[in-house]
Amino acid sequence: MKVDLNADAGESYGAFAYGHDREIFPLVTSANLACGFHGGSPGRILEAVRLAKAHGVAVGAHPGFPDLVGFGRREMALSPEEVYADVLYQIGALSAFLKAEGLPLHHVKPHGALYLKACRDRETARAIALAVKAFDPGLPLVVLPGTVYEEEARKAGLRVVLEAFPERAYLRNGQLAPRSMPGSWITDPEEAARRALRMVLEGKVEALDGGEVAVRAETLCIHGDNPNAPEVARAVREALEQAGVEVRAF
Amino acid sequence: MKVDLNADAGESYGAFAYGHDREIFPLVTSANLACGFHGGSPGRILEAVRLAKAHGVAVGAHPGFPDLVGFGRREMALSPEEVYADVLYQIGALSAFLKAEGLPLHHVKPHGALYLKACRDRETARAIALAVKAFDPGLPLVVLPGTVYEEEARKAGLRVVLEAFPERAYLRNGQLAPRSMPGSWITDPEEAARRALRMVLEGKVEALDGGEVAVRAETLCIHGDNPNAPEVARAVREALEQAGVEVRAF
Amino acid sequence: MKVDLNADAGESYGAFAYGHDREIFPLVTSANLACGFHGGSPGRILEAVRLAKAHGVAVGAHPGFPDLVGFGRREMALSPEEVYADVLYQIGALSAFLKAEGLPLHHVKPHGALYLKACRDRETARAIALAVKAFDPGLPLVVLPGTVYEEEARKAGLRVVLEAFPERAYLRNGQLAPRSMPGSWITDPEEAARRALRMVLEGKVEALDGGEVAVRAETLCIHGDNPNAPEVARAVREALEQAGVEVRAF
Amino acid sequence: MKVDLNADAGESYGAFAYGHDREIFPLVTSANLACGFHGGSPGRILEAVRLAKAHGVAVGAHPGFPDLVGFGRREMALSPEEVYADVLYQIGALSAFLKAEGLPLHHVKPHGALYLKACRDRETARAIALAVKAFDPGLPLVVLPGTVYEEEARKAGLRVVLEAFPERAYLRNGQLAPRSMPGSWITDPEEAARRALRMVLEGKVEALDGGEVAVRAETLCIHGDNPNAPEVARAVREALEQAGVEVRAF
Repeated sequence: MKVDLNADAGESYGAFAYGHDREIFPLVTSANLACGFHGGSPGRILEAVRLAKAHGVAVGAHPGFPDLVGFGRREMALSPEEVYADVLYQIGALSAFLKAEGLPLHHVKPHGALYLKACRDRETARAIALAVKAFDPGLPLVVLPGTVYEEEARKAGLRVVLEAFPERAYLRNGQLAPRSMPGSWITDPEEAARRALRMVLEGKVEALDGGEVAVRAETLCIHGDNPNAPEVARAVREALEQAGVEVRAF
Repeated sequence: MKVDLNADAGESYGAFAYGHDREIFPLVTSANLACGFHGGSPGRILEAVRLAKAHGVAVGAHPGFPDLVGFGRREMALSPEEVYADVLYQIGALSAFLKAEGLPLHHVKPHGALYLKACRDRETARAIALAVKAFDPGLPLVVLPGTVYEEEARKAGLRVVLEAFPERAYLRNGQLAPRSMPGSWITDPEEAARRALRMVLEGKVEALDGGEVAVRAETLCIHGDNPNAPEVARAVREALEQAGVEVRAF
Repeated sequence: MKVDLNADAGESYGAFAYGHDREIFPLVTSANLACGFHGGSPGRILEAVRLAKAHGVAVGAHPGFPDLVGFGRREMALSPEEVYADVLYQIGALSAFLKAEGLPLHHVKPHGALYLKACRDRETARAIALAVKAFDPGLPLVVLPGTVYEEEARKAGLRVVLEAFPERAYLRNGQLAPRSMPGSWITDPEEAARRALRMVLEGKVEALDGGEVAVRAETLCIHGDNPNAPEVARAVREALEQAGVEVRAF
Repeated sequence: MKVDLNADAGESYGAFAYGHDREIFPLVTSANLACGFHGGSPGRILEAVRLAKAHGVAVGAHPGFPDLVGFGRREMALSPEEVYADVLYQIGALSAFLKAEGLPLHHVKPHGALYLKACRDRETARAIALAVKAFDPGLPLVVLPGTVYEEEARKAGLRVVLEAFPERAYLRNGQLAPRSMPGSWITDPEEAARRALRMVLEGKVEALDGGEVAVRAETLCIHGDNPNAPEVARAVREALEQAGVEVRAF
């Protein structure tokens, strides 16, 4: 058994700090680095790439909506052509820092509202997949299983990496529980670790609305911007390793 | 004898049109495409890349200061580290569109105030050269001959491409006449063409302050945002071709 | 009978020109000036304010979504609190230029996707109305009649100014025909003028889907960014004046 | 004897937190709120205005260069016309939130590189002064004494408020010691408090390069973004009050 632990990072913007990169990088195996649109100034991205290199963390691109002030968390009515161009631009920008530091681009994972929109809007999903393919057809794309986003990534012929969220509650139908639902967010590190373990070892987890739900996970997402993100990452990693799961980049 | 004709392009930004790409592309042999900082939104850059492809125009990156509202024409006190990161970011962003369209990245030429600052500030020049080298040590860098910028580009081991400006007046000391000097700007297409020819065939041109000045030119810059840019480009190109000069990308 | 003719203006951004302010200002009686979010850099706003002053055009604020690259035409999922703060910020910014030039702030009219969202999303409409009221309870708000936007503006106790669009086709139900429908856009100046006249004199116009539709109009919008905007504005104005309608700011 | 204690605040930008507003506001008597260019998104500015209101802190505008990624700390070659328009825009934007919350605009103090440039570039200083005057001729402008900035503010007929920096070392010639000089920054709260007291009570302080320097202070600046800013503010305030100095907004 093996699994990847990923976290968003490189989201600071100039003098504006965001997240806990220094605490998180020793604990995860891959990082999704902001590309300048929802966060991530050139200098801060370069800093994060060097940090990832120092810790042997695999680096993916984390493109978002062009909405710095909203941190890419507000849905925007972009046309598929706009999504395609915005994603290409961001992947390219990040990849220049990787080239400069001699690292490969490991994967792509969209950010925030762009990720969520891709999960339910087929055109957005397809535009993302086509941008990734146009940049490099061998580049893996991280997706939420069971969505049109997964479908379009597969249709484009991309390598698809299935993601699960130990800190987020799931509904019986396999979807993430909306953040507005009580109990939708797991903040206790031990509970997150227990859920991560079930996801990886049993392929399922308790649903917030009763019963269990199947969860396929090649990578587990740790939310690097939570106040206790390092604790969660540490608890999840230790639980996995103690159970004999190999934690490494996909 | 041969020379390249270059123009800045791809500088439109979303709904904001800038320049005359459609009229200019059939006339030049290389284009410096904006990368999003002083101009050039992702969609507009992609559009320009496709236009360049259709016309067989070689595409270079045209990184500028992060100053959209000032169109990259206002000097900014960036540290060398900031210049390095900003240039890398922009080259990478542009190169993604080239990858998607199957075109090579042909060269780099900084924009506006960044270009001018590089000509007299050694640290800025070095930061640009190191960014280009980090991205691809084989990538040519367009420079103004006789400046610290040329020196630093050579020191970095880059292929250096010498640029001359048929529409700009020169001083006896080899520098461009400041735009504030009367006569510093040549707007007559025939006069620009005549000067271009002297530059290429004789390696010199009349100086604004008397006498002549040596001018080395592997590429001639046409200012694509002048109202009569297409006329100037056409006049220069025709004059060169009629004189038997081969006009093609370096 | 009297009516106001309004046009969007001041939307240029630094070196990026947009619209036809110089041709349009002699023809309209009020202008909605961009406030920096979808267009309108400080320098260009000031220029437009001075132009309005020279032509005796009444100046309103034209706040939009914070989406310069999308020109405020892409819907964004802003919370009501975000809409409130963004609108306040923009009204304030514009009003400083009016203060400096000794002009009053005449009205507020939201831009593009923000206007359209207000017409069908009550919370957005209310947030706009409350921002206008917080800035100045006597400030008129331009609305599309028959929408939740009109309702919320009235509920807030604001003076409401009803707007009609002679260049846009209407449906029988009173809504504007979507731009994707054939015939939704009237480009012929004479036809636009004829429709403007019916709107003002008869309070109705032909519907695109058959029959007629009632149209209440205290102000008529001329789209200042159309290539033939000056012709349309001239035709509409002349038709109104020849019919004895007084064309002046509300 | 009396003096004002001011701090920069409201500099957070959307999800990006900056500074220590909640800890600082109970300790200072005036706050310079970012206006959106170097920091300060509309929502965060509004938040800071409400916080200031709750604590009875007088609110000034803190306009900066249009350089969010550089936090307004990098000098930019803006023309005087551009400075004038940028400052007006920012004052106006901030003042809308004050209007909405029923607070007066108390003063203007430029930020970072704009402040520093004004101290030695007369045209920049004059542009700032004229913008303040155009907005409201009664609005006080905070200046560094003994600079062309003070001169231009006085020439414009503005009320000038003299500022001193207890956390910054001074040179014998009255200038602030450059940050690159060892000892230029006082981080010990007690030492900052001692210096603040000398400035207010004796009108002088030790110079970094030997001897003493005269310091005129109607307001003392506390750098709200230092890690120990609240400790410094508390120490300075307590020292002043224990010495019988009245600490209140000018």
